Amino acid sequence: MNIAAAQSGGPTCAINASLVGLFGEALRTPQIDAVFGSINGIEGIINDDLVDLKRIIRTNEDMVLLKQTPSTVLGSCRYKLPDISQEGASELYDKIMACFERHRIEAFFYIGGNDSMDTVQKLSDYALSVGSDIKFVGIPKTIDNDLPVTDHTPGFGSAAKYVNATVQEIIRDSSVYSIDSVTIIEIMGRHAGWLAASTCLLRTNDEIAPHLIYLPESDFSAERFLEDVRAERAKHKAVIAVVSEGIKLEAGGMRSGMIDNFGHEYLSGVGKVLENLVRNEVGCKVRSIELNVMQRCSSHICSATDINEAEQIGAAAVRTALEGKSGVTMVFKRLSDRPYVITIEAADTSLLANKEKLFPKEWITAAKNNVSDEAVKYFQPLIMGEVDIAMKNGIPLHFKMH
Amino acid sequence: MNIAAAQSGGPTCAINASLVGLFGEALRTPQIDAVFGSINGIEGIINDDLVDLKRIIRTNEDMVLLKQTPSTVLGSCRYKLPDISQEGASELYDKIMACFERHRIEAFFYIGGNDSMDTVQKLSDYALSVGSDIKFVGIPKTIDNDLPVTDHTPGFGSAAKYVNATVQEIIRDSSVYSIDSVTIIEIMGRHAGWLAASTCLLRTNDEIAPHLIYLPESDFSAERFLEDVRAERAKHKAVIAVVSEGIKLEAGGMRSGMIDNFGHEYLSGVGKVLENLVRNEVGCKVRSIELNVMQRCSSHICSATDINEAEQIGAAAVRTALEGKSGVTMVFKRLSDRPYVITIEAADTSLLANKEKLFPKEWITAAKNNVSDEAVKYFQPLIMGEVDIAMKNGIPLHFKMH
Repeated sequence: MNIAAAQSGGPTCAINASLVGLFGEALRTPQIDAVFGSINGIEGIINDDLVDLKRIIRTNEDMVLLKQTPSTVLGSCRYKLPDISQEGASELYDKIMACFERHRIEAFFYIGGNDSMDTVQKLSDYALSVGSDIKFVGIPKTIDNDLPVTDHTPGFGSAAKYVNATVQEIIRDSSVYSIDSVTIIEIMGRHAGWLAASTCLLRTNDEIAPHLIYLPESDFSAERFLEDVRAERAKHKAVIAVVSEGIKLEAGGMRSGMIDNFGHEYLSGVGKVLENLVRNEVGCKVRSIELNVMQRCSSHICSATDINEAEQIGAAAVRTALEGKSGVTMVFKRLSDRPYVITIEAADTSLLANKEKLFPKEWITAAKNNVSDEAVKYFQPLIMGEVDIAMKNGIPLHFKMH
Repeated sequence: MNIAAAQSGGPTCAINASLVGLFGEALRTPQIDAVFGSINGIEGIINDDLVDLKRIIRTNEDMVLLKQTPSTVLGSCRYKLPDISQEGASELYDKIMACFERHRIEAFFYIGGNDSMDTVQKLSDYALSVGSDIKFVGIPKTIDNDLPVTDHTPGFGSAAKYVNATVQEIIRDSSVYSIDSVTIIEIMGRHAGWLAASTCLLRTNDEIAPHLIYLPESDFSAERFLEDVRAERAKHKAVIAVVSEGIKLEAGGMRSGMIDNFGHEYLSGVGKVLENLVRNEVGCKVRSIELNVMQRCSSHICSATDINEAEQIGAAAVRTALEGKSGVTMVFKRLSDRPYVITIEAADTSLLANKEKLFPKEWITAAKNNVSDEAVKYFQPLIMGEVDIAMKNGIPLHFKMH
């Protein structure tokens, strides 16, 4: 039998590790012949744009390098399959199934977030409806950590490790001058604030900062924010506020639009808006820093726990398909925080597809400007361990498809 | 005899390593008793705000941690001493000399950039004029690498290593989708483009990107920039342009002002301005990324060469003062690129104070949008080697003054 894998959604540091885990397990499984990679997610299946992974990942060194390479080696997509009931949809589904049949692909693995799980769900439903025996298995990944059922998602731990290391360095940077200042750090997370919340881990390293943490899960109020900043300024010379990009400024009576020098309005990040708010209303030295895409691709400081788990969940997906399961997504179950023990299971994909898991409201402090120590216990194991990154000429080596 | 050290200017990853080098050399020198640290640069001397470094750096582990801690453990300042001829200046100089005498400080070391070297120059001139025997020695540091005489500056190599690792990760991140895109990465450097230029090192790792590099040393033209972007788009799916923050948009007929939602104009970075330019004039997917203060404080991926050299130049400064030299700044002389060989010498501070060394025009390509391979040879040794960073709970450990 042949199998195929694809990667979808936004990049992370762990998505290639899951591909390596899947590929390695396929090599160890005698009944699997070819392992195809679909270029740009499901688009590669639709357009019959496949590569033979055995020709691409050729040595153990290739596997090691691919594990430390961020983003998606097979490319990605933001493609949402239409409902089968939509006009023209059945032709598209037939095209997909024809590609699988042409290449004798008996199992398809989709590494992605909740949108990608929607694709897994639709394809497994369709396969069932037409009597096909092809197995569809989802492998989660997202730095947002917003998938239900699973304890956490591959990719999140590395993003959290980068964010914590970087926020700590910014704390050092902000404390050098004798003048008082406010630093606002904008962290990814449009709906779920897990990544911003994870900066509570700096407490375990004896940091008092970040003094303030704002998540999309709480109502945001510009007035309360200014009160918080003023209160922290009375206590600390250099105030550090971490904000999720998804906090709702509009609900707080603010617009995030700016007019550029072409006269066009453009949306700036919340960090820049809050920076201007503090400058105008508090009048102190203030700066905002956006950690931007570095949060999802800084594999040079990835979490060994995350990368190893990502590899293991990729391998587990192959075994699950061989057990005959389809329409399932691999998930982590946590058995214990200390020692940290997890198992990998297969959950019904319908429980995850198009669904979000938000940061628990009970872990947000009453003042809505920080998170509780319960969150520290949850986050701690996910960022543990460092990967010994292979370097060339002083720069991390990346795997490249030629 | 007692000695004192201070740190000044913007943070780097190496400025504490120079303090450790100086402190370690003092411990090995029997005639040196106390080693004072002046809080917030020369302000600590003026305000008699000194700490006894032997009470603060107490173990070998403290020295190791301080070497891997970014920013300035003693704080910093942007204080420029008035000319001695200015009204009231002599009282200030007398106050400074009185502090030195009160604590029997016979040598003062200032770790900083070209502004700090101005302080070294003025104080050594003043000491000479009043018959004082106190020695003043400068220790260079700046991520901008813009000091003359010295081959390079401590702090630059670590910044260049971070920038190269991060730009490479952004290259991976930008290549995932099938849609064409332009990514503009803004790098620090107000007058000198060394740090942006250093991204040419990615060539040694088989990267084609960055496709375009713009430095403040060249005239910037918005039209030529758009032509360049269009030409690269014809060749590459994901165009990467690196720009120094100091490129002169105004000279290119552009304003960098934006109007925020308070109706106030604020200056945005050149990256955001060029992003909007590409969006409006080319009309493709475009984003800009500012590496911000992470360039100067990301010690988790510092250059071992840089940190070790910073330590050595700090130690050499102590020996230089004991040899009786004053009004000098320690500099690196490069004897060979491969193998990389440098020596440390003392240069007359007047050769460095308030002076800038720009990126050589002959290393900029004729099209003014990239740099030549000569630059690669120069930059290569500076980013070599990794420091094995001590971690706690998955996050780098920082030294903190209690």
